[in-house]
Amino acid sequence: MKKISILGSTGSIGVNTLDVIERNPDRFQVVALAACSNVDVIAQQARKFRPQVVSLFDTTKVDALREQLKGLGIEVLAGQEGSIQVATLPQADMVVSGMVGCAGLVPTFRALKAGKALALANKETLVVAGKLMMEVAAKNGCPIIPVDSEHSAIFQALNGEQSERIKRIILTASGGPFRTFTSEQLEHVTRAQALKHPNWDMGAKITIDSATMMNKGLEYIEAKWLFGLETPVDILVHAQSIIHSLIEFVDTSVMAQLGMPDMRVPISYALSYPDRIECDLPSLNLAQMGTLTFEEPDFERFPCLQLAHDALDMGQTLPAVLNAANEIAVQAFLDELIPFKDIPEIIRMTLNHHTPSAVEEIEDVLEADRWAREETRKLVTVAH
Amino acid sequence: MKKISILGSTGSIGVNTLDVIERNPDRFQVVALAACSNVDVIAQQARKFRPQVVSLFDTTKVDALREQLKGLGIEVLAGQEGSIQVATLPQADMVVSGMVGCAGLVPTFRALKAGKALALANKETLVVAGKLMMEVAAKNGCPIIPVDSEHSAIFQALNGEQSERIKRIILTASGGPFRTFTSEQLEHVTRAQALKHPNWDMGAKITIDSATMMNKGLEYIEAKWLFGLETPVDILVHAQSIIHSLIEFVDTSVMAQLGMPDMRVPISYALSYPDRIECDLPSLNLAQMGTLTFEEPDFERFPCLQLAHDALDMGQTLPAVLNAANEIAVQAFLDELIPFKDIPEIIRMTLNHHTPSAVEEIEDVLEADRWAREETRKLVTVAH
Repeated sequence: MKKISILGSTGSIGVNTLDVIERNPDRFQVVALAACSNVDVIAQQARKFRPQVVSLFDTTKVDALREQLKGLGIEVLAGQEGSIQVATLPQADMVVSGMVGCAGLVPTFRALKAGKALALANKETLVVAGKLMMEVAAKNGCPIIPVDSEHSAIFQALNGEQSERIKRIILTASGGPFRTFTSEQLEHVTRAQALKHPNWDMGAKITIDSATMMNKGLEYIEAKWLFGLETPVDILVHAQSIIHSLIEFVDTSVMAQLGMPDMRVPISYALSYPDRIECDLPSLNLAQMGTLTFEEPDFERFPCLQLAHDALDMGQTLPAVLNAANEIAVQAFLDELIPFKDIPEIIRMTLNHHTPSAVEEIEDVLEADRWAREETRKLVTVAH
Repeated sequence: MKKISILGSTGSIGVNTLDVIERNPDRFQVVALAACSNVDVIAQQARKFRPQVVSLFDTTKVDALREQLKGLGIEVLAGQEGSIQVATLPQADMVVSGMVGCAGLVPTFRALKAGKALALANKETLVVAGKLMMEVAAKNGCPIIPVDSEHSAIFQALNGEQSERIKRIILTASGGPFRTFTSEQLEHVTRAQALKHPNWDMGAKITIDSATMMNKGLEYIEAKWLFGLETPVDILVHAQSIIHSLIEFVDTSVMAQLGMPDMRVPISYALSYPDRIECDLPSLNLAQMGTLTFEEPDFERFPCLQLAHDALDMGQTLPAVLNAANEIAVQAFLDELIPFKDIPEIIRMTLNHHTPSAVEEIEDVLEADRWAREETRKLVTVAH
C-alpha cells in the first residue's frame, strides 16, 4: 500500500489524483491533503479519504474547516507551515505536488529534503528552482516523476534507458487557441477567447499560459532540468494533443507516448511507476481521429517561447523572475487591466529591469520572486 | 566485440546489417555469412569483412565462390548444411536471420537450438513454426529481437515492461500501393503497379505481400508469437509508415516508435540491444511531414488479412500452409500466370484442401510446406 500526500488537493491535479486513488483502494492510501482555500471541497475529500492530516493555506478559513471535520480525528493545520507538514509527513511514501504557481515551491522542496518520492505537476517549482530541486533529489535519491502530460510522455519514452542516448527531446504543444491567429489578430483577442483551450480543461492561469505559449516555455525549462540541461529540446506544434511528446535517440529511433487528453493517465503512471495500473478510460482510436498534424512553433507570434529560452540561458534568478512576472501579467490580463499582447511585453520589461544573482538557496528564489511580482505590478499599473 | 553470423547476407536485410557493422567496427565483427546464390556479392562481402566461414545455398555455384575467395583462408560451405554451420558457428554471439521465405527456417531454428541470440527479420520462421521457435528460445534463454520495423517498434515500445501490462498491440500497415483502390480496380492491377511500394524499397516477394496486405497478415501472426498469443493485435492503416507500431498499455497510455523508413534503424537496435548506437541517418522531421493519417484496414478488399487471422486461429499446420501457398501464388503472379485477385483465392483454396495436423517438430512444418507448395502449383496450373 503506497501512502500518498497531496499538495493542492482541490485543484485539477489533486481532484484527478484522488479519482485515481479511489479506483485503486488496494494500492494507494491518502495520508495527507493540503489545499489553498476551498474549505468545502477539502472537507468533502477528507471525509471520504480519511487522511491523518489536512491543511489549508488560507489561515482565515481554517476554523471553518475544523468545524466541518470535527470529531473525525483528522488533524487540521494551516498556512505554509501546514503545507510543509503535509509534504513531509513521516508516513507518506510519495508526495503529489499539484499546487499551482510559486506557492508549491517551499513544500515541494521540503518533500524532497524529507526523502519523499515526488510526483511533480507543479512545473513552476523546477522553473524557478530547478538547480536546488535536482540537487536535493539527487542527494536524497528521491525519484521525481513528472505528471505534466508532456514530461510524463518523455519519462515514459525514456523508460529507464540512459539519458546519454537521447539525441533530442521533442516537446509537443497544442499551439493554444490562437495557433492560427496572425500577429494583428493577436492584438485584439479577448479574455473569453483566451480561456477556450482546444484540448484540455484546466485552470484559468494555465489556460492563458497555453494561449501565450508561455506554458510551453515553462515546460521547456522543466524538461531541461528533468532530462539534462545539455539535452536539446525542440518544440513541435501538434494541434490535436494526442502525441504528448517524443524522444529521438542517437540511433534516430523516435519513441513517443500518445493518449487521449486525460490527466488521470500520467497521474496513475506517476503513482504506480515503475508498474502500470488499469485505468477504466476510453482507448485512443487513431483511425477515428484520422489525422494528426505537426508544424514548427512561431517564436515571433508567441514571444513568450523566446523569453523562456532566454531566461534559462541566462540562468541564475532569471527563470524565477520570468515565472513571477508571468503570473502577475496573466492575472492582470484576466482582470482586464492589460491586453493580451502586453503579457510578453511586461514580462520582457521585468526581465530587463532585473539584476540577476546566483541561486544558492530557496530564499534567493523567493527574493527574486517577490522583487519580480512588485516590479511587474508597477509595470501593469503604468500600462493600465 | 559482438560476433555476428548473417543468414541471407546478400539480401536487403543482410546488406543493411553489413552497413551497420561497417559503421561500428569497434562493436561488431562478422564471423560468418550465408547467401542463396549471389556469388559476386557474397564474395565481395567476404573480402571486405573477412568472416571465418561463408556458405552458398546454391551448390552449383559454390565452386565459383571458392575460386573467388582462394587464398583468403575463408572456409566456403554449401547447401542447407552450410547455412546451418553459419547459424551455429560456436564463435557467433548473435545470428541475424535475414533469409526470405521458408528457406531460413531450419538454420534459424538451429541457431536457437545452439543458444544464439537471434535478430529475426525472417518473419516466415515464426509464421510457420512459431510454437517450436518460442519453445526452444525459452528453453535455451535466447533473446529473439525482431528486426521487422513493426515488431522492432513493438519491442522498443515494450522496452522491458511486463507483457501482461499490454492491453493491445497496434500494428501499423502502409496499406500498400492499392490502399485506395476499389474492389473493381483491384481486378485489373498489373505486376508493375503491384511492385511499386509507396514507402519501402524491398524485394519483389515482400512488395507483392504488401500490395495484397498478406505481409501484414504474416506480421500479425509474428506479433502474436513474439508478444503473446493472448494479446490482442489490431491492425491500423497508416499510409506514411512513420509510426512503425504502437502498444496500448492497461492504463490506456500508448507507446509508439517512429522514424524514417530505413531498415538500418531496427537492425542497429537489434545488434546493440539493450544499448543503442549512433546512426548517421537523417532525423525524422514531423513538422516538415505535416500530416500523419490513420484508417481502419479493409478485410474485404484485402482478404489476405482475414486468411492470416483464420490460419492462426485454426493453428496446427495451417499457418505453414498459408505461408507456402502465398509464396507460390505470389510467384505465379510475378510470372504473370495468375491475376492479382487470384492470389488470395488460390491461398484460400489451398487452406481449404488441407487437413491440419499437429506441429511437434520441424519436419511437420516442412511436410506441410511441401504439400502446400505442390497443391498451390496445381491450383495455379488449373487457374492458368
